[in-house]
Amino acid sequence: MVTVFGARCPALKGRIKALVKQRPQPGAEIVEVDVPSFGPEEVLVEVKATSICGTDVHIYDWNSWAQSRVKLPRIFGHELAGEIVEVGKNVKNIEAGDLISADSHIACGQCFQCRTGQSNICRNIKVLGVDVNGCFAEYLALPERNAWKVPKTRPLEIASIMDPLGNAVYATSSTEPSGESVAIFGCGPIGLFSTGIARLLGATSIYAIDVNNFRLRLAEKMGASKVFNPKDADVLREIREETNGNGVGVVMEMSGNAVAEAFQVLRPGGRLILFGIPPKPVELNIPEWIVFKGAQVLGIFGRKMFETWYTMEALLKSGRLDVTPVITHKMPFNELKKGMELMKSGNCGKVVLLR
Amino acid sequence: MVTVFGARCPALKGRIKALVKQRPQPGAEIVEVDVPSFGPEEVLVEVKATSICGTDVHIYDWNSWAQSRVKLPRIFGHELAGEIVEVGKNVKNIEAGDLISADSHIACGQCFQCRTGQSNICRNIKVLGVDVNGCFAEYLALPERNAWKVPKTRPLEIASIMDPLGNAVYATSSTEPSGESVAIFGCGPIGLFSTGIARLLGATSIYAIDVNNFRLRLAEKMGASKVFNPKDADVLREIREETNGNGVGVVMEMSGNAVAEAFQVLRPGGRLILFGIPPKPVELNIPEWIVFKGAQVLGIFGRKMFETWYTMEALLKSGRLDVTPVITHKMPFNELKKGMELMKSGNCGKVVLLR
Amino acid sequence: MVTVFGARCPALKGRIKALVKQRPQPGAEIVEVDVPSFGPEEVLVEVKATSICGTDVHIYDWNSWAQSRVKLPRIFGHELAGEIVEVGKNVKNIEAGDLISADSHIACGQCFQCRTGQSNICRNIKVLGVDVNGCFAEYLALPERNAWKVPKTRPLEIASIMDPLGNAVYATSSTEPSGESVAIFGCGPIGLFSTGIARLLGATSIYAIDVNNFRLRLAEKMGASKVFNPKDADVLREIREETNGNGVGVVMEMSGNAVAEAFQVLRPGGRLILFGIPPKPVELNIPEWIVFKGAQVLGIFGRKMFETWYTMEALLKSGRLDVTPVITHKMPFNELKKGMELMKSGNCGKVVLLR
Amino acid sequence: MVTVFGARCPALKGRIKALVKQRPQPGAEIVEVDVPSFGPEEVLVEVKATSICGTDVHIYDWNSWAQSRVKLPRIFGHELAGEIVEVGKNVKNIEAGDLISADSHIACGQCFQCRTGQSNICRNIKVLGVDVNGCFAEYLALPERNAWKVPKTRPLEIASIMDPLGNAVYATSSTEPSGESVAIFGCGPIGLFSTGIARLLGATSIYAIDVNNFRLRLAEKMGASKVFNPKDADVLREIREETNGNGVGVVMEMSGNAVAEAFQVLRPGGRLILFGIPPKPVELNIPEWIVFKGAQVLGIFGRKMFETWYTMEALLKSGRLDVTPVITHKMPFNELKKGMELMKSGNCGKVVLLR
Repeated sequence: MVTVFGARCPALKGRIKALVKQRPQPGAEIVEVDVPSFGPEEVLVEVKATSICGTDVHIYDWNSWAQSRVKLPRIFGHELAGEIVEVGKNVKNIEAGDLISADSHIACGQCFQCRTGQSNICRNIKVLGVDVNGCFAEYLALPERNAWKVPKTRPLEIASIMDPLGNAVYATSSTEPSGESVAIFGCGPIGLFSTGIARLLGATSIYAIDVNNFRLRLAEKMGASKVFNPKDADVLREIREETNGNGVGVVMEMSGNAVAEAFQVLRPGGRLILFGIPPKPVELNIPEWIVFKGAQVLGIFGRKMFETWYTMEALLKSGRLDVTPVITHKMPFNELKKGMELMKSGNCGKVVLLR
Repeated sequence: MVTVFGARCPALKGRIKALVKQRPQPGAEIVEVDVPSFGPEEVLVEVKATSICGTDVHIYDWNSWAQSRVKLPRIFGHELAGEIVEVGKNVKNIEAGDLISADSHIACGQCFQCRTGQSNICRNIKVLGVDVNGCFAEYLALPERNAWKVPKTRPLEIASIMDPLGNAVYATSSTEPSGESVAIFGCGPIGLFSTGIARLLGATSIYAIDVNNFRLRLAEKMGASKVFNPKDADVLREIREETNGNGVGVVMEMSGNAVAEAFQVLRPGGRLILFGIPPKPVELNIPEWIVFKGAQVLGIFGRKMFETWYTMEALLKSGRLDVTPVITHKMPFNELKKGMELMKSGNCGKVVLLR
Repeated sequence: MVTVFGARCPALKGRIKALVKQRPQPGAEIVEVDVPSFGPEEVLVEVKATSICGTDVHIYDWNSWAQSRVKLPRIFGHELAGEIVEVGKNVKNIEAGDLISADSHIACGQCFQCRTGQSNICRNIKVLGVDVNGCFAEYLALPERNAWKVPKTRPLEIASIMDPLGNAVYATSSTEPSGESVAIFGCGPIGLFSTGIARLLGATSIYAIDVNNFRLRLAEKMGASKVFNPKDADVLREIREETNGNGVGVVMEMSGNAVAEAFQVLRPGGRLILFGIPPKPVELNIPEWIVFKGAQVLGIFGRKMFETWYTMEALLKSGRLDVTPVITHKMPFNELKKGMELMKSGNCGKVVLLR
Repeated sequence: MVTVFGARCPALKGRIKALVKQRPQPGAEIVEVDVPSFGPEEVLVEVKATSICGTDVHIYDWNSWAQSRVKLPRIFGHELAGEIVEVGKNVKNIEAGDLISADSHIACGQCFQCRTGQSNICRNIKVLGVDVNGCFAEYLALPERNAWKVPKTRPLEIASIMDPLGNAVYATSSTEPSGESVAIFGCGPIGLFSTGIARLLGATSIYAIDVNNFRLRLAEKMGASKVFNPKDADVLREIREETNGNGVGVVMEMSGNAVAEAFQVLRPGGRLILFGIPPKPVELNIPEWIVFKGAQVLGIFGRKMFETWYTMEALLKSGRLDVTPVITHKMPFNELKKGMELMKSGNCGKVVLLR
């Protein structure tokens, strides 16, 4: 892979560099493409920073999910910080020079879900970098509605991770964690963000669980009270002991691999978030885990537009939410492949690519 | 089985008839036992009517659940209408002569759940007729707290089914069905009650699903807009068509056998109640059924003590909730065996035994 | 006032008739105006029916509120049924020939409230017929977003009253009236609609209060359990007796003149809606009426866009919400003055003007 | 006033010292009384620390509220830490030697409110030290249900202030302050506690308002972002500016003297708590302050039994809620009069009397 990013696009009408998934096989290529066209309600964004999501790794690796969902060729990537270069003629609240982050869920605005405050689960949703071209490129076209203006003083790496941070804000605040014990299964970036947010929102004990000790160290930095590696500990027994046999009031399943464990540590009457994507069907003991417990279970997808963004912005501006421990790696765009490998190793938090 | 009930107990200090599960095998026997003793916070109740729950059938048949849970000998039965005969010395709000129904969940009053308004999922719960002696007997000892006074004008068969009716009131009102389309899987008595309550609470379309046509006819009587028998119809496709492809806003799984179908007809953002007890683990497609849908799932057990009872009482007193179509059979106590067979046939709603 | 409405506009480019408030004094005049121009996100509507709101009476009478808010000249009126004649070029979901009703709150779509699901209280709200030209005219320009498509089989008078019916749906469903006793102060059209909706949503007792016996008769038709005229009855005492001294679980103040009474009949822990507009400041006994009672008080303005509309549409389509008793008068457009007088007399429900 | 406390009661059967309001006039006297008798569900508590509430000052001063409510003679005081000396025969979860705090609301357990999770607003409530004898005494009889066991390592002054701290926990958590701007009017002890709790629960900006600069300094210590003294600042204007003209999402009126101001800084759609007790009726501009704003207003009285206590205990045990800055004065029991004067001066937070 050859370094191509790093120089500012000389002319907007010209050609730009983009990372394109061209062939139905692992890998991707940096190629020249046209500057994206943008409609009257869209903005043209110069990408300043972009971070890698697990979804990007799936597309890069061309796993079964990617094969079934992504049409080629596709510029992928959906987490970004960028500067507005030009705006469509109906754009009202954003102007050239603004620094923005973005919500990656492009909602139709017309369906029942969109018209009742649930555009995160829009029936006709298009995901940036999955269903339409994304931000692993020098420039990006984006609906104004999806752009979120941020202070120009915000570090680019923090502006770039607001989409996944928003997942964590939405998931965590949905659990009403104040004064509660919380167990978080999975210490990937979103589990780590959720650890910090749970603490900021008044959770009194936070148990973080992961098979990777590097990530457990990060969880401690983000405010976990205790961390557990299932390789070394009987997690269910230990959490039960920690909670005097009562179980945990709030559980967040953010790994996709610990659904059974998540239900088992839940206190009767507790609240459980399902955010992780299990790779195959999961067997549930519905009587013991849900019915007799009177459990409340909530699926979380995306972020509330824009309740979550206002909350996140307020938390960031307050100075009380420090997400920097999660951003473990910053590298130039052209080291994307290295970033992908890091992501697969698990020995990282968030990997951000900067121009 | 010999007729033994029907004559009023001649003397409270004497012996009474009771249906006792004595041996670890199918069946039960009517035998003479002592009048139950009762503590200072308890009342002595003369049972006037008692209805048969599926749980009673499990105990009668001595299935695997019963074997693991019930200690013998045990007088079973937990749904009743009765007259107060005597009260313990600390009893405050009930007196001899009162007509009562009862909540079958005897809660400890001391655990976290009990002290935070969730005594229906008390950590130390004892269920009447399962963990302590129940109401298939001429007399019954009951904590005052579990007794619910009803007007003496209430028909005994209606007073006797308030415990399961309460399940339906709690489950249905938890879904906030007003103005919603509702699918109810399973038209046993609680599914049927829920149909009537959903309608009374402003559900606009109610789809009832069962494999038994007798029960589907009852569902129509209780207010179902459409009924479906999976033996004759592609339920998922038909409900999708009925809802213009959107799915149903509220789903109540009350059979234990249709969990997968229940999740599949749910509209993104919808609310799903799990009340039925699947006989074995169920495989869930967590991404498609819960996460991407932003589904809200709630396990329902018992009834809120006593929010549900106040609501139920108000609904009954208003004259707007007619549950009589569900009470398909009334018979004398000594025909219990016939009642058990009816329950197993499925060709019934609620079977009530009267003295 | 001369009859001018009633003939279809001969040519869209020509002149149309409209009721215009031209001078800062009581009254209004029918004059010829240009066909309204409409933008790319707007539709042109031929008004088929329009109903009179109390707000229209205020503008007509030029009371102090109207003087402070309305800039002249102004075509007023904001409740309508109409047929789409033409659509702007960015309009997506509506086409010529569609029958529509409309939400009268034109929201900016950009403020915090609009972006967090509260566009009914948009910071920059413009009300149809108050801040921009309204529907007392042959044609009307309307943002597509405010148009609500209805079945062509819907009677025009019912389509025309959906804006105020939506107030009632939003207010009533916000109180969660299922299984509750409800007191409604004020039996104007919205109080009457609320009576019917409260009943449909499972309220068990509904007490309606008004000083006008004509309206109390309508309340009975809409499902009130008991009605009270403060001229003839000690309302507070009677409602207290009806509720065994407990008070009412849900109170809706829809008159603006009974705030003190509303609080006094509220049960501790109950929910109270403030919808009516008191003409001057109201003295509240905050300790006794709110603090010691743990009262929940909610101000209601407009309707949720568009949760309320979906619910209302589902209730209307279900055939279970019959609002026709409230529509007491239908008359041609040119009898508007008579309609205004009727409204002021109080001896009416909803007055609808039809072409 | 003569020193009388300080020596341990020599014999439980003997006479003890208590502060008794004996005459309908300002002041109170320390006199000898019998050791209180206690029932089978009660415990006998040796008072180790007690803190002074504003209510105690009202009784001491014999203001109009006290005259209308309190029957003489009365031992007053209701905030305490104490050691269990003896327990009634039906007491289950507490034993001699336990250290306890207490909820001062003695609920009947039988009314609608008590049976539906709202015993803090029990219809037959008796308040400790107001309606029954309280804790300004060496010993106190207390229903087991009102005692809250605390770790023996908890400092007595902290155990003694849990009743008012619970007010603050209940009030603040009811506002859902996470990610919100919060204005707290009134920096008495409960306003100060609420400041700390709002911060702990993730409020992003906290504005504290009081006329007393000593208390504003305490508010800063508890985490207020900005403090305002209405004597020196145009509070409404400044808070509007701080919030870019939007107003504050959460407002807590905890003084009783700033109801109008509280409503005026509230953001449309915001949540407002009424906790303070205005000395006389307050005029509200209902249209502008509540209706058009869609305001949510909640009266707060007491604490949820026992949801609030579990939350408070978890917050205290987590070590993250430091209430010590609010406890400005500790003094021996016999300096009660000095404590009363301090309370009246306003130059204090919480005043705790220790044996």
